[in-house]
Amino acid sequence: MFTVHGLRTSGNCYKLQCLLDMLGKPYRWVDVDSAHGATRTPEFLAMNPNGKVPLLVLDDGRRLVESNAILCYLAEGSTYLSADPWKRAVTLQWMFFEQYSHEPYVAVARFIRRWLPEEHARYAELPQLLERGAKAFDVMEEALSHDAFFSGGDFGVADIALFAYTHCAADGGFEMSRWPRVAAWLDRVRAQPGFTAMHS
Amino acid sequence: MFTVHGLRTSGNCYKLQCLLDMLGKPYRWVDVDSAHGATRTPEFLAMNPNGKVPLLVLDDGRRLVESNAILCYLAEGSTYLSADPWKRAVTLQWMFFEQYSHEPYVAVARFIRRWLPEEHARYAELPQLLERGAKAFDVMEEALSHDAFFSGGDFGVADIALFAYTHCAADGGFEMSRWPRVAAWLDRVRAQPGFTAMHS
Repeated sequence: MFTVHGLRTSGNCYKLQCLLDMLGKPYRWVDVDSAHGATRTPEFLAMNPNGKVPLLVLDDGRRLVESNAILCYLAEGSTYLSADPWKRAVTLQWMFFEQYSHEPYVAVARFIRRWLPEEHARYAELPQLLERGAKAFDVMEEALSHDAFFSGGDFGVADIALFAYTHCAADGGFEMSRWPRVAAWLDRVRAQPGFTAMHS
Repeated sequence: MFTVHGLRTSGNCYKLQCLLDMLGKPYRWVDVDSAHGATRTPEFLAMNPNGKVPLLVLDDGRRLVESNAILCYLAEGSTYLSADPWKRAVTLQWMFFEQYSHEPYVAVARFIRRWLPEEHARYAELPQLLERGAKAFDVMEEALSHDAFFSGGDFGVADIALFAYTHCAADGGFEMSRWPRVAAWLDRVRAQPGFTAMHS
């Protein structure tokens, strides 16, 4: 059985919960309060020297980090990761887009507004985060004019990766009504068999 | 034949040159001066709405972006991307690490010091970039205490991805002698058959 070390309200950790539930695979969840230093302890750093969750542990002790790499590993052989080389390439393209051009703005805006007190200095970052996050949603909106999903046209791991922080982007101050195709895609993801919502 | 749109001095673009040369595959290179706005023209944005290079174009017109997704696509079936599920997972883990925890610090420090005048406001970002980039090198140094390469233990696309900005990190002000295992790994990458250096 897989063990997931993670914070349930983290979008990056939720990705694993979402896919494992869709796959119907049993797993053990170990709560790690990364918002309050639990990924900085010597014990945790021995498991992931980069000090981040989620962390997947196999029964034989092998460990894997980076949410999107874990998604691909878990989805291999299922309908959530195509065997077609081009579809796989497009799926990975969107997963790297998510980690580089989306999550650093969309997830961080949410973190600041949800977990930091209003007088915190990091509130000064919000205008830039909202501008760059909006650009990521513009790119998604354009893509959804010709595809229903991001995983090579089908629903799959790239959609789970992008859903994780897009569905709760309003927490960070984004006006999601600006991107109607994104809103419709979020509903299509929620309609997938086995879908479970993120802990709020 | 593949067409690569890219800037030859960009590490993200160099990744594709490096792999294509190792694979011995012919390709056409279209210079795009992303440092001076060439990725912001309507013509370029029609090819990649995210306004970034590299961009790979196939003979039939299909387009792929995100350097690490392109590396995986090009390497499929070669020794540079293992068919073993665990080795693939570890390879992807390091490629996502590169884009999230390494490139945003190591590449950006180089960009500021190499392309911006010394009085530019962005020089104020350097202390934080150097601190976070150093953390990425610490994580790599630790990994190299038990593995010779990052692509599931073997040389492959994760090594090309990490080499791209690590080998020129001194341009950004990093004191690379702090990470001797990283320095030895850089030499092992340079010794690979077909290796070509980045345009300086």
